[in-house]
Amino acid sequence: MRSDRLGETLLPKRIALPVFASDALSSVAYAPDEIMLMLGLAGGAFAMTHSWQVTLAVILVMVVVVASYRQNVHAYPSGGGDYEIANVNLGPRAGLTVASALLVDYVLTVAVSVSSGIQNAGTVLPFVRGNEVALAVGVIALITALNLRGVRESGTAFAVPTYLFMVAILGMGAYGFVQHFTGTLSPSESADLTLLPEAGTDAVTGLAAAFLLLRAFSSGCAALTGVEAISNGVPAFRKPKSRNAATTLLLMGVLSVTMLASIVTLSQWTGVKIADDPATQLVRDGRPVGEDYVQHTAIGQLSEAVFADFDLGVVFVSVVTGLILFLAANTAFNGFPVLGSILARDGYLPRQLHTRGDRLAFSNGILILAAAAMFLVVVFRANVNALLQLYIVGVFVSFTTSQTGMVRHWTRHLRLERDEAARRRMQRSRVVNGLGAVMCALVLLVVLITKFQAGARYAILAMAVLFALMLGIRKHYERVSQELAIDWESEKPLLPSHVHAIVCISKVHKPTMRALSYARASRPSVLEAVTVDVDPEETHALVKEWERRQIPVTLKVLASPYRSITRPILDYVRSIRTGNPRDLVTVYLPEYVLGRWWEQVLHNHSALRLKARLLFTSGVMVVSVPWQLASSEGAERDWFDEPPIPGSVRGGSG
Amino acid sequence: MRSDRLGETLLPKRIALPVFASDALSSVAYAPDEIMLMLGLAGGAFAMTHSWQVTLAVILVMVVVVASYRQNVHAYPSGGGDYEIANVNLGPRAGLTVASALLVDYVLTVAVSVSSGIQNAGTVLPFVRGNEVALAVGVIALITALNLRGVRESGTAFAVPTYLFMVAILGMGAYGFVQHFTGTLSPSESADLTLLPEAGTDAVTGLAAAFLLLRAFSSGCAALTGVEAISNGVPAFRKPKSRNAATTLLLMGVLSVTMLASIVTLSQWTGVKIADDPATQLVRDGRPVGEDYVQHTAIGQLSEAVFADFDLGVVFVSVVTGLILFLAANTAFNGFPVLGSILARDGYLPRQLHTRGDRLAFSNGILILAAAAMFLVVVFRANVNALLQLYIVGVFVSFTTSQTGMVRHWTRHLRLERDEAARRRMQRSRVVNGLGAVMCALVLLVVLITKFQAGARYAILAMAVLFALMLGIRKHYERVSQELAIDWESEKPLLPSHVHAIVCISKVHKPTMRALSYARASRPSVLEAVTVDVDPEETHALVKEWERRQIPVTLKVLASPYRSITRPILDYVRSIRTGNPRDLVTVYLPEYVLGRWWEQVLHNHSALRLKARLLFTSGVMVVSVPWQLASSEGAERDWFDEPPIPGSVRGGSG
Repeated sequence: MRSDRLGETLLPKRIALPVFASDALSSVAYAPDEIMLMLGLAGGAFAMTHSWQVTLAVILVMVVVVASYRQNVHAYPSGGGDYEIANVNLGPRAGLTVASALLVDYVLTVAVSVSSGIQNAGTVLPFVRGNEVALAVGVIALITALNLRGVRESGTAFAVPTYLFMVAILGMGAYGFVQHFTGTLSPSESADLTLLPEAGTDAVTGLAAAFLLLRAFSSGCAALTGVEAISNGVPAFRKPKSRNAATTLLLMGVLSVTMLASIVTLSQWTGVKIADDPATQLVRDGRPVGEDYVQHTAIGQLSEAVFADFDLGVVFVSVVTGLILFLAANTAFNGFPVLGSILARDGYLPRQLHTRGDRLAFSNGILILAAAAMFLVVVFRANVNALLQLYIVGVFVSFTTSQTGMVRHWTRHLRLERDEAARRRMQRSRVVNGLGAVMCALVLLVVLITKFQAGARYAILAMAVLFALMLGIRKHYERVSQELAIDWESEKPLLPSHVHAIVCISKVHKPTMRALSYARASRPSVLEAVTVDVDPEETHALVKEWERRQIPVTLKVLASPYRSITRPILDYVRSIRTGNPRDLVTVYLPEYVLGRWWEQVLHNHSALRLKARLLFTSGVMVVSVPWQLASSEGAERDWFDEPPIPGSVRGGSG
Repeated sequence: MRSDRLGETLLPKRIALPVFASDALSSVAYAPDEIMLMLGLAGGAFAMTHSWQVTLAVILVMVVVVASYRQNVHAYPSGGGDYEIANVNLGPRAGLTVASALLVDYVLTVAVSVSSGIQNAGTVLPFVRGNEVALAVGVIALITALNLRGVRESGTAFAVPTYLFMVAILGMGAYGFVQHFTGTLSPSESADLTLLPEAGTDAVTGLAAAFLLLRAFSSGCAALTGVEAISNGVPAFRKPKSRNAATTLLLMGVLSVTMLASIVTLSQWTGVKIADDPATQLVRDGRPVGEDYVQHTAIGQLSEAVFADFDLGVVFVSVVTGLILFLAANTAFNGFPVLGSILARDGYLPRQLHTRGDRLAFSNGILILAAAAMFLVVVFRANVNALLQLYIVGVFVSFTTSQTGMVRHWTRHLRLERDEAARRRMQRSRVVNGLGAVMCALVLLVVLITKFQAGARYAILAMAVLFALMLGIRKHYERVSQELAIDWESEKPLLPSHVHAIVCISKVHKPTMRALSYARASRPSVLEAVTVDVDPEETHALVKEWERRQIPVTLKVLASPYRSITRPILDYVRSIRTGNPRDLVTVYLPEYVLGRWWEQVLHNHSALRLKARLLFTSGVMVVSVPWQLASSEGAERDWFDEPPIPGSVRGGSG
């Protein structure tokens, strides 16, 4: 997209909501399941008693986090992501911490969303069972391919499935409520099953019960993933940007809470049971249901209960749930390269990732994300519950840091602000963000305590590795930058006095003749053609040909006692440099330009090797003189995947 | 090794024999087993009756082949390998056929020799059983590592194990003969077993018996592998080269035949039984011995019988047999890259493989050979018998072609030769080679008939693929060569009229200042500094700095609506070319030279991408101006693995 046209694509709220909220809204597809599953470890009765309490705690956190991010949106209308906020207010180390957490979370967003989408599809597609890993890998591959092809979803493409998902879940909720109060709500397929505590678990009381409640709570906080997306996207909103974004954020929070609450309530009414290990925990008529039992997701079971005699409703819910989850995964494919580009700008990642217009850099990011997500899906067998153990820690690391940063932000601004009304607003915002920071820190603590062993440690390890890696890259760039800085006081640029040009020759043919004529056109002080005597017969033939054609440049034959091509030229160049240290040596290398990848294998090796070594000697320039072979015609376009360049002229030189 | 010192390393016969004959001699370690195993498919009695007959047939072929190759040695004192002989006398297609066969055979030499060495080691090392594949892969990896490290075995290192192997086998033979005639020879460990025909095989008579004899014969011809090695090595002999080589070849033949005959005779006397499937075919007291039975090689069983009360003798035989087999594998690691280099010289393989002095090319050859051999070992579970089904066809393809080529050679020379004595010698040689060609063709036919289904077809397929690949490469080179040839009548070299120089600038620092001063030193007709406006802030800062430092070159800012770096420069260069087609455009790119591999990831990407694209435009030269960072100091040496260059001077320019 052209920079100067970016402005034309500002989003109205009705499009911005689905664009930025698909990730957050989609998490209600797995958060209720997680709460019930965790509580179910202590048996069905425990789950029934406590699932609403835990859900309320999650909703409380959601309210606080949404309120806090509304402050972010007002403070950073230019779209300060968590990384920027931490960076600006708490310093680069905090920023880098958030960046590491976000990078890990993008990978987990893809892995969790796709796995959950596959799981939801299983409600109506029986063949999913047993093929989850292969299907999840396939879906990731498909999303990757779409993103590599450059199919950027428009707002509308995003809007449709997200609104359909809202319709599906809220519609199902409303219809279910009506059925409940008219007494026509069917029980769910797992209503008549007994949910036993996990094998080896006795009656859970006291501390153990408290710990289990905390575990369920921290799993339920999965519902908060993606909430930060709107605060990154403020610049894409129509004016007044901040107010519109804040409204959208509020709307998203209300929708999320409503959907979550409906699902949990309906699950209680229809007796949905979700077990960590269904085969042994679920009992029908005193007997475990065994390996053949297929446990559907809460949304799946609810749709079957609510739309008991309306199969199309079940299919609709299942399809749109899968769709919004895949869309959520897709948002990570957009966010990951963007964050990579910002980190590259700040010197934390290889600089070439920064160039926005460069499709290659984005492709690399997309491929890295896809590979990492596939790795997780394979290692964790596309098990949503197992993946969630790694997921939430990163989310709350970045929430906590960013909210703490916001407190600092307000404190800094309060020092300068004199207007009382503004000061009051800022103080109120600081209180909200402070509350958010404390709340998120508490949740982070709970997550760390309850999930460290279960998997969070791997996520923390990955963050630590990324942190160290990015810090190392930044330090390297700083070191290089210092080394390259010019001390204008002491260093006077010296122009080399002579230019000694050498043209490397192996045969008399068009490429070497072009190199010679280009070298002559550059009018160096000294011009020599040089060849290495690897095979005496060939050298002899070359010298004869040279004389016969009366080529007006001296041909120097370098001996090669070890039959190497590179070494004699290197030695010769260095001997010129040693004799005349202020001379500049220019080495002309004819290079073939070919159109097919396998042709590359067959050519240019000596030239490239020689160039790589010459560059280590100072006072030497290496000039590539290309000869375009017929096969190169049109290949540039194919390789670099760009439209043809208008007015480009081929041939006609040398 | 220096070309002019190669002469100092000529080998006396006593060293040349082990150097060139280890491969041929080592094949007696598996050839007798193969004969007995194949005959044993029809039961122990059949094997006992016919093994000597088959061995005699193999010895006959050996005598004829040795006699034929003695003619080669006299005709090509410069060391015409089978490839060269076929190439010169029968044309390039025949040469390429032989080359494909030889390449496949080198791989099989490694796989078969190492697998057999492991099998022989199993006689004294019980843990080998069940770990054959892993051990064989490990040994190949070890040989590969030694060859990559450049540890070229000296003649003596080769001589010791080969002579020890001769001592071991001939000593065992002689001692066994004495024991036999004094009646003290112990029976072998399998003497009291009954060898049943393979399951499903009835009494073998008539055609089936003849077919089995032919199969056993073609397997026994494995004894001939490696016979051609001496004819490749003639130049390494002391003078008179040809006569010494011929004598050594004869000696090798005598030794091979003696060892083969001793092993087969002793096996009969001690009742050695070798079964294709020992678990079911071998019966003790009416019961199959089952999976626990470990079948040792013939040499292993013989050593245990002959040295019944001298354990050290058994260990000695086993160790030196393993050793010579690994040495035989090592010869392939020397021969494969050499053949690759010859084929590259003739344009059948990528040209960079030709440069002899280049360790990298040899490393690639070594790695390809190792990977292919490991692949075979893994696929065929290090089973010598299974691997041999693929092996012999290639050997006889090259024997037959080379002997036919020799017949042509003599016919051609007879046309010119007038001296009667010389003509008689030539005629005699032609008869011998003709006999060799016919004999080898017959054996090849037998091998094809009896082994095609068993595995030879895979070898033939591999040869066909290599043949097609190499032909394709050659055709590509020829096409390029034609395209590059100069028509001196019609083409007059035109000197470009102007040189328009562009220096690409991203920052004001040492590398760009060096690029600028080098460009100025080259005195182009027009000189411009060019920067791409990707980030307006950075561009503004750059322009300010440029003015402040009063850099005496105009800085041109190129707009980049799509935030790409490459495209605006490409477009600009092309616009210059279009405006002035006879102008030459020189693009100067500052390039960082760094010492660590991971630093490469962090730099130079824009420059390399830009260069790759600029080369597609004609009339453009790309100049790399290197800036050596501190980390590059000494790195050239580490990377390119060479001794430091005397008199090399660092720094001090620009």
